[in-house]
Amino acid sequence: MIFLFSDFGAADIYVGQLKAVLQSQAPKEAVIDLLHDAPAFNVRAGAHLLAALAVRLPRGSVTVAVVDPGVGGPREPVAVLADGRWYVGPDNGLISVAAARAKGSAAWSIGWRPADLSASFHGRDLFAPVAALLTKGNRKAAKLRKAALAVRFGADDLPEIIYVDHFGNLVTGLRAGAVAQGRTLVVGGRAISRARVYSEVKPGAVFWHENSLGLVEIAVHAGNAAAALGARIGQAVGIEPG
Amino acid sequence: MIFLFSDFGAADIYVGQLKAVLQSQAPKEAVIDLLHDAPAFNVRAGAHLLAALAVRLPRGSVTVAVVDPGVGGPREPVAVLADGRWYVGPDNGLISVAAARAKGSAAWSIGWRPADLSASFHGRDLFAPVAALLTKGNRKAAKLRKAALAVRFGADDLPEIIYVDHFGNLVTGLRAGAVAQGRTLVVGGRAISRARVYSEVKPGAVFWHENSLGLVEIAVHAGNAAAALGARIGQAVGIEPG
Amino acid sequence: MIFLFSDFGAADIYVGQLKAVLQSQAPKEAVIDLLHDAPAFNVRAGAHLLAALAVRLPRGSVTVAVVDPGVGGPREPVAVLADGRWYVGPDNGLISVAAARAKGSAAWSIGWRPADLSASFHGRDLFAPVAALLTKGNRKAAKLRKAALAVRFGADDLPEIIYVDHFGNLVTGLRAGAVAQGRTLVVGGRAISRARVYSEVKPGAVFWHENSLGLVEIAVHAGNAAAALGARIGQAVGIEPG
Repeated sequence: MIFLFSDFGAADIYVGQLKAVLQSQAPKEAVIDLLHDAPAFNVRAGAHLLAALAVRLPRGSVTVAVVDPGVGGPREPVAVLADGRWYVGPDNGLISVAAARAKGSAAWSIGWRPADLSASFHGRDLFAPVAALLTKGNRKAAKLRKAALAVRFGADDLPEIIYVDHFGNLVTGLRAGAVAQGRTLVVGGRAISRARVYSEVKPGAVFWHENSLGLVEIAVHAGNAAAALGARIGQAVGIEPG
Repeated sequence: MIFLFSDFGAADIYVGQLKAVLQSQAPKEAVIDLLHDAPAFNVRAGAHLLAALAVRLPRGSVTVAVVDPGVGGPREPVAVLADGRWYVGPDNGLISVAAARAKGSAAWSIGWRPADLSASFHGRDLFAPVAALLTKGNRKAAKLRKAALAVRFGADDLPEIIYVDHFGNLVTGLRAGAVAQGRTLVVGGRAISRARVYSEVKPGAVFWHENSLGLVEIAVHAGNAAAALGARIGQAVGIEPG
Repeated sequence: MIFLFSDFGAADIYVGQLKAVLQSQAPKEAVIDLLHDAPAFNVRAGAHLLAALAVRLPRGSVTVAVVDPGVGGPREPVAVLADGRWYVGPDNGLISVAAARAKGSAAWSIGWRPADLSASFHGRDLFAPVAALLTKGNRKAAKLRKAALAVRFGADDLPEIIYVDHFGNLVTGLRAGAVAQGRTLVVGGRAISRARVYSEVKPGAVFWHENSLGLVEIAVHAGNAAAALGARIGQAVGIEPG
């Protein structure tokens, strides 16, 4: 099973090209779009979102993870095996949160290069073919060499908005287990209390809850939290002293 | 064959998680996105759109149908078999129009629950696993018990705009067979006559026609009807006396 | 392998219906969305974009290509075999650039018609079933008859913006090999020089480069070229004398 996580845009010209490569080189593997609208160029937010999504992926799966503003520059390609799940992508920190939170993880530099490597689309030309090799367990053909990750964001939570979904819900980089239920959050000077589910609060009310990824999320019942709070990705989320 | 119909957003983080579950639990089934941008929280519009889409789906298919503003509240999960097609989703009326229009249909409450049910994503945690069981004919594992639908919108047409496509075409809940071809429609005070195809009218002209789902649709030749009429989902569509 | 190229909208109600047909009629074929947000109604831009995407598709694949503002009118359906790749779609020029650039190509009119052909969705009713037949090599059932393409845009480059991606990059119809690297482009009166990769220029700088499809593309490092230049699809791209 191959998962795709990127900022390529779900509706854009890039994902189909990448899938054509995977279908040619790993025709028996199911390919699933995990997310293609990760915050553009925002490696840190993407790393935290990927780490939250990753814990539910089947062991043995391979995730192509590409948020890569430095494509064509000096950053290296990397493969990571963390808790039995492979990740392939740029060594810019994107995979590092998932790796740091795993019970066990190891990283490899990728020595393989295609005959024809474009300057701007390593997802198609390099990461997808390597992912196809890894589904077959073929580390040798991928020319993997043990290495440490060059950029490491660490395992800690990120007290920021890392994603805004199409309902306007604000996903934060805080795991719900790390925030006591009685705590009040603060976003843009506004205090926000917890509710368990939408139906616990009145329509229009702003609240926070543990979302289905286990992250703290700020929402409005029957409304749009991003619009209500004028919030944006990268904005700080404060936790009031208990 | 499994179809997905929801308001989860085609580009958002939810569909990939649901597909990961289906791929793990029903790896041989093709999974097809029917629509993930059903009008958000609008169960009635979604029910009419689903009913129109459903008549073309293969018998034996299973559709996961989720527009579920009450998730986490008291509404129950339900499975429906209508004209040989299975539907799994919340018992909030969403499946009820397709059921009411079928020649034969039956409904079951779903007794199965996952070990770990999130408060806000029953599509992933409950409906997808049950859909996987139903593709194998395994009603027993799903703990189905015959029951009547709690919310029933009935088989009648809905004289409203139920969907706006990306071209700006206005899909109504009126089946074309129920509206005589000579009739004039009225939306927002504006009278609209019928044409058979786009090329029958001048560029810029507003007209109605039978769309490819058999529904009455309001369009503008080489233009955007939603913008031209300032129309929105839920707006009433009148039929002038003939 | 079946590829889909259209202006149906990736998030809209159309693609799932088309895939239901393909899954029923060619269940063993992988179906890959190449692009569903081709510029709406813009056949010429779509033809150049398709031609650029097509050269990387596997030989033996079948592409359903539909940008079809004349659907329901007199234009005919056509099948084209160009350099070993099949294309099925309207005979309105959409496939003609890919055909003209191929080393070898041939065109056939399609005689097959479904029992129930909608006026507005030939992608689902006609082109998808014919594509399914062609994956099985069944030209006879498709009732193919050798014919010349009715509309031919030719093999030449198109000095216009043909696509704007979700990052705001401006894809042109100029193949990079046809523009010397030292040349300056002009869009909306603004002169634009070349860079090899994003990291060669300062954040905010506008430049042109060869994109991953081999086309000239105008971009802004860490920014949005469409917004910076106020550019749009169809806008002319000039090449200053060297």
